[in-house]
Parts: sequence; structure tokens; C-alpha cells
Amino acid sequence: MKWNTAISKHEEGALSIRGVSHASLMQEHSFSEAAFLLLSGHLPSSDERAVFDAMLVSSIEHGVEAPSAFSARVSASVGNPLHIATAAGILATGDHHGGAIEAAADYFKKGTSAKEVLDAGAKYPGFGHKLYKDLDPRAQLLLSIAEKHGFAREYVTHARAVETELRELGKPLPLNIDGALAALMLELGLSPRLGKALFVFARMPGIIAHSLEEVENEKPYRRISDTDVTYTGP
Amino acid sequence: MKWNTAISKHEEGALSIRGVSHASLMQEHSFSEAAFLLLSGHLPSSDERAVFDAMLVSSIEHGVEAPSAFSARVSASVGNPLHIATAAGILATGDHHGGAIEAAADYFKKGTSAKEVLDAGAKYPGFGHKLYKDLDPRAQLLLSIAEKHGFAREYVTHARAVETELRELGKPLPLNIDGALAALMLELGLSPRLGKALFVFARMPGIIAHSLEEVENEKPYRRISDTDVTYTGP
Amino acid sequence: MKWNTAISKHEEGALSIRGVSHASLMQEHSFSEAAFLLLSGHLPSSDERAVFDAMLVSSIEHGVEAPSAFSARVSASVGNPLHIATAAGILATGDHHGGAIEAAADYFKKGTSAKEVLDAGAKYPGFGHKLYKDLDPRAQLLLSIAEKHGFAREYVTHARAVETELRELGKPLPLNIDGALAALMLELGLSPRLGKALFVFARMPGIIAHSLEEVENEKPYRRISDTDVTYTGP
Amino acid sequence: MKWNTAISKHEEGALSIRGVSHASLMQEHSFSEAAFLLLSGHLPSSDERAVFDAMLVSSIEHGVEAPSAFSARVSASVGNPLHIATAAGILATGDHHGGAIEAAADYFKKGTSAKEVLDAGAKYPGFGHKLYKDLDPRAQLLLSIAEKHGFAREYVTHARAVETELRELGKPLPLNIDGALAALMLELGLSPRLGKALFVFARMPGIIAHSLEEVENEKPYRRISDTDVTYTGP
Repeated sequence: MKWNTAISKHEEGALSIRGVSHASLMQEHSFSEAAFLLLSGHLPSSDERAVFDAMLVSSIEHGVEAPSAFSARVSASVGNPLHIATAAGILATGDHHGGAIEAAADYFKKGTSAKEVLDAGAKYPGFGHKLYKDLDPRAQLLLSIAEKHGFAREYVTHARAVETELRELGKPLPLNIDGALAALMLELGLSPRLGKALFVFARMPGIIAHSLEEVENEKPYRRISDTDVTYTGP
Repeated sequence: MKWNTAISKHEEGALSIRGVSHASLMQEHSFSEAAFLLLSGHLPSSDERAVFDAMLVSSIEHGVEAPSAFSARVSASVGNPLHIATAAGILATGDHHGGAIEAAADYFKKGTSAKEVLDAGAKYPGFGHKLYKDLDPRAQLLLSIAEKHGFAREYVTHARAVETELRELGKPLPLNIDGALAALMLELGLSPRLGKALFVFARMPGIIAHSLEEVENEKPYRRISDTDVTYTGP
Repeated sequence: MKWNTAISKHEEGALSIRGVSHASLMQEHSFSEAAFLLLSGHLPSSDERAVFDAMLVSSIEHGVEAPSAFSARVSASVGNPLHIATAAGILATGDHHGGAIEAAADYFKKGTSAKEVLDAGAKYPGFGHKLYKDLDPRAQLLLSIAEKHGFAREYVTHARAVETELRELGKPLPLNIDGALAALMLELGLSPRLGKALFVFARMPGIIAHSLEEVENEKPYRRISDTDVTYTGP
Repeated sequence: MKWNTAISKHEEGALSIRGVSHASLMQEHSFSEAAFLLLSGHLPSSDERAVFDAMLVSSIEHGVEAPSAFSARVSASVGNPLHIATAAGILATGDHHGGAIEAAADYFKKGTSAKEVLDAGAKYPGFGHKLYKDLDPRAQLLLSIAEKHGFAREYVTHARAVETELRELGKPLPLNIDGALAALMLELGLSPRLGKALFVFARMPGIIAHSLEEVENEKPYRRISDTDVTYTGP
């Protein structure tokens, strides 16, 4: 197995990342700036950094009710170390939890309209939310921050147009956090393929906090109560 | 299953995290600040933030050679989505890759000396590195940043004393990045139990960048070459 | 969260699985018979059992070169317990390693011809192998066992017809183990969706054996050699 | 990275496992026999096979209430493929769910008495069960099968002695399934280190059946109900 990589280089004991000295990254840049460098290939402008930070903070935590949070707690609860619990949290994200970002980004990139999607009998990814029926406040706030920093451009405009179109077509579904993140990923020039990975990165602090709270405060071994189970078999 | 949590609260459609409104976090705080809030329970001072950022950036990437990087690439290479590849990268961290942080933090917290550990026939976790024999430059830089911000106190002093003691005992092993992170975790008041989880969080951007590079540039299905395998059986 | 399940029932301290007493399963049935019961809903006939056993044994191990084997070893090598290493092995299976079973089963179920697939510019899943160019011996043997037990019927016939068709179309690719498993899954009435899960179940003994061998015989921390890495960046 | 392995060999297109031709394994041996070969290094006698089968069947499924079952369902529920869901199920096993096997095997191997463990303020692993207070029926049945096949020897005798001793010491805890599996692993000459890995292998059919049931019968996205959450923070 041979490996080609443009990500980092060891040379005479010194590491550079995307051509930038690791030492200078540690001294002069924040974690989100260094993360942006790794994912995009260049250090962010201050506007890019502000939008990227807001994107990450928007997804950082959403309650123990989220599958990623309670699954991590369950893994910690049965006796696994916390890094394993975070992996368990990640395996509880997917197409229906953080996963609409990639699908929405694909549509936004192609400029797909709501009508096209509904005519095909599908749902437009990135719109609608279990809790927020009219308006996803995290999505709205995210877009207002992006506007302030000059990043509500082509893709945000398209996302808002789809939201309007859905209402006119009798399917009023708010742009949700996945949809807003998808539009902003494209505005920042990040690969649409990063969708789910970016979400799990952003959610990691919440997942870790839940895992730690579980092992510090709770007795081991989370088990479903018998009263929540109905047997439907032979 | 009932859940108690002090991490976040949904109230009338608004989310607060550790008592701070999520909306204000998104507008006024960076990702690492919000992460610090989740993990410690309070927003960081600007010195705490600087040290925490440097800690995270210190571990953000260390080459495709690291087990966490190439294992994530292998998972992506066989056709898994990127969020799954990041989980695979995490399962390739552990006691011997990022894992000395917790063990070192436990010793530092108790003020354990090098002599005690060597007398017991063990190695002092957080000292020594495969690549760096004399001095781990990432560790040194991290401590100098901590000093600048007033965070080289009790635990950093102890870590440096152990380094000196090891040299005097004829086992010259430099404080490594795990050891430096352990000391600084304690200086910042973070739980020693966070060691491995904090490492995987910090390494996530590198892991994601490697997974993306693999799927964008390489043909699928990483397989070990037959020439690297020796059969030793019957 | 409420759960409905037809899989097993606890009643007065006794467990039944798919309506069969667990105690009688333990006394009267082999592991593969009980596994078949869980996956299909009924106990196998002796012919079904023979084919199912051969399917599982066919995929049980394929060398340390396979991503699932060496990834599990790497996870064990960095200090994780063996059950975590097996999960790491599973995250190194996917569409390109064990994953063609589901895709092939979908095509076989619809009776899709080779011409249709090639005309669409695609590859027919379940045909071709990196090592075996003319004939996949595991696939051939599996089908001969199935024939002996009366299970080379509708789907096996179709799979063989596709193999012939591919040769005639100038794309001579042998039915591989994934394709043979796909055909036999359908013959046994198992859900095509089980493809990848069935593969990881079958491969588990090999994955575990590799993980154990790693921790018993090797020094910790598998790292890629610098000589296998080429830097292609700025 | 160089790899040494005694597990399997490719030679002139043919695979052998532990020195046995893969083709003959497929034709003449059951899945559990081939699994035993991989894990122990030799094919089982018919008595060994019977005990090994019973061990595996004893742990094959224990209801949706078990963390490994519902965590796999949650991973499938958020949109991951089934092989990923099985990995999620595995990350929800650990020291407190399947994990006592290794700890018990370590004690049994050393002949540790109940008094020694209780005097040290610890619990003897492999004894006691949340559901079964007096007697773990799966453990009892397993031992009776082992007896019938001549495998209730040194380690089973010790396990039963510990059970009696615990009762006499006023801590009446039944030998549980983990304890029985630990004793039988040792009787069969398997490595104690296999404990958790053997458990996840045995439980895999149950985990897969639950994952499949979830995606076939339930709507996506399992989320904890707000009514099951109590906020305890600032």
C-alpha cells in the first residue's frame, strides 16, 4: 500500500499542514481556522472564519434526545472509554440525523427547484424539522450571520427561493439547519461530500459532554424498560 | 429509561447550553469557546481560550502514517460514507495513540514521581516519542504558549520536574504531546477522563481531510500487498 | 421511545426466540441453525442449514490483506479491547468489500441482464475479483454445494446466465463470492438487505482471530512507514 | 508495515485456514466448527463442538431491551446501512454488557476465591443478574450441556464453588451467563482475552435481526421523548 497525500508533511522534525507550518498554526490560529485550512486547503479570511465558526456552533449540541447524544451515553454506560463512546455517537448519525446536508448541497449545487423534486415524488432535503414547524431558528440565525459577513450569495439565495416555492406549492416546510449548512458549505467552497463529516465534527463537543456526564453521574448499564416493549411475534 | 442532564435545555423553541443561550453562542463565540463551555461548564477567559485553542491545534493532524488517519482512509476506501470513516479513525486511537493523556493526567494529579513509576517497573505515560528522541517540539511549543498565558503552573511544573528526574535516572525521555496535553487539561480544570475524547475531537479535522482526500483521489479498496505478509503457521 | 418486536419474548423468566424456546435452541440446535431462525423467522431444513453453513464458512476468513482484517488489528494494536477491534474491522467493510452482495441480490431479484447493466455504463455487481481472473473457486464451490442440496434454482440459474452473457459481450468476469452469496441468499428466502450484515457476521471469526493474534504476538502501535508515503502538496 | 500471520495462507489460488483447506471446510464443516478452528487453532471434537455451539446460542439474543440491540436499531433508524448498525450494536457492549466474561475468566484461571474478592471490597465478576435473582437459567442450562459432554471440569467446579461460597458469605448471587461462558471458554482451551469478542460474535445474529426489523417496520429517526428528560442544570 502506497499513500499519496497533500495534507501534511514531516520534514526535519517539523510538520507543515497544507503548506503552513504547524508551529505557526499553534501560535497564531484558532482551532476552527486550522480546521478550515485542513478541509478547504487555505486559511480562512476573517469573514470566512466567522461563518465557519457559526456553522460549527450551530450544530454543537441539541439535547440528550438526539440519537447521537444518547447512543454515546449508552456506549459509555456499558463500560467503554469515552473515545469509543464518541464513535458510538457518530454511528448514530446518518441520512436522517445530520445527513440531509450532503443531499441538500447536491441539489443546491445543481440549482434544483422544489417543483422538480416534488414532481418526482420525493422530499426536498434540508427543509422541515420535527420540532420546528414554521421556522428553524438555528437556520435563520445562521443565515443572518452569513449575510452580515457577505456570504449569503448564490446558494443561500437559491435555498430561500426553494423555501418560498415550497410554500407556494402547498408544502410549507422551513429551511432547516441541514439546509442552511448545505448552502453555507457551498458558499465557503467546501466539498458537498463533507456534509455528514462536518456535522459529526461540529457535534463532537456535545457528544463528549454527554458521555462524560453519563459516567460521572449515572449507574452503569442503560437498559430499555420492559414496559416500553410490545411483543408482536408468534 | 429516564435521562437527567445539565448540558442543555429546550424551552419554548429556544435552546440553551450550560445556561447560555445557543443563539448568543452562535453570534458571539467561536467554536472552541463553545466547546470549552460544553466540556468545562463555563465560557473560557481569553487566556483559557488561547491555551485550549493551542491544545486542539497541536493534535489536529500528524500525517497519513498515524493509525487514525490511514484507518479512516481505509474505511472510506471500501465504500463507506465519510462520517463512518471518521468513526473508523476514532476506533484506531486508544491507549497507544492519544491514550497516554488520561494516564499521565492521573499521575500528574497525584504528583507521582518518575522514581515511583520506574521502581514499579512501569513507564511514565506522557514521556517519549517514536519520532522525537530528545524533545517533542509540539509539547515544547504548547507549554511555551501556556506560559505566555499564565497557565504553566502546578501541573506543568510537575511535568517538567518528571522530565528532569527521568534524565537524572538515566531514562532521558522528553515530555511528549500527550504529557503536555495532560498537564494543560488539569491546569484548565478539565476532567482527566476527557483525555482520549479530547484527542479524537482535536484530531477530527485531520481524519476528515484524509478521508476526503482518499475518496477524491484514490481508487477504491485498499488491500495489503502480498509481499508485506509472511505466513508463520502450519 | 416505544419498541415493537417479533424477535424474542421474555415470559416468566423464560426467553423464546421467533416463538421457539431459547432453552430448546441451546439443547437441540447449532449456532448456524439458531442464526438462521433469527434472520429468516423459521428453523432451517437440513438442506437449508447445509447451504447456510457453507455460505458462512465461505466468507469466514480471507487473509490479513483484507481491509477488515488489518483494520481490526490496527485498532487492537493501539490498545483497544478486542470487541472494539471487531467493530473497527466491520467499519472497514462496505460497498467494495463484502458490499456487492446487496447490489447483486437486487439485480438478481429483478432478473436484470448483463446487457442492461453494461448499456447503462455500469458494472454488474457480483462479478469479477482482484485475485481470481477466470473463476472464483469459493463461488464455484458454494454453488456446487447449493446444487447438491437442491438450492441451485431460479436465482443461481440467473447468475450463471449473466456470467455466460458477460463472456459473450466481451467482458469475461467470473461470478464472485459476493454474487454467489447474493443468489443463495435469495434462494434461502433471506432479505437482500441482509447482504453486508451477513458478510460481517460470517467474517467475524477471522476478524477476531486476527485481532487476538495481533495483541498476542506484536508490539503495540501500527504506523505506516515514511517510505510508503509521497507528499504531493504545496 | 510488515505482517506475520499463522491464520491463513493463499497458495496457488487456494486458501488454507490454520492449515486446513478452505474448500474442505466449506464442504465438510459447520460454521461453528470453522469458527472454533480459527479461534483455537484446531478443529473441535464433537463434544467440543456441542459445547461451543451451546455457548454461542446461549448469547445469541436477549431482547430489544439490551443496549446492543436497541443501539443497533437506532443506528439503522437514522439511515445507516445494516453492517454499520451491527458495529453500533458492538460499541454498546462492554465491561457491563458481555464484559464480565474476561474478568471472570481471569479470576477462574487463578482459582480466586469469593472471600478474596469480597475482602478487597469488589464484586466477583460473572455472578448476579438484573433479571434473574436466584438462578440464571441460561447459565444452568449451559453447564448441564457442558456436563453431558464431559466439559464440566476444573473451571466449572471452581465456578460452582464460588457460587456456594458467595451464598455462605451472605451474598447469594447466581452464576450468570457471563460466568458460565468464562468457565467454559477455559475448559475449551480458548484465550480469556476472547471474552468480549466471543460475546459480540454470538450476539451478532440478534443484533442483525433487530437492525433489519427496525428498517423494515419503523419510521426513521429514533428520538428520546421530552417527557423522559429532566433538566438539572443552571
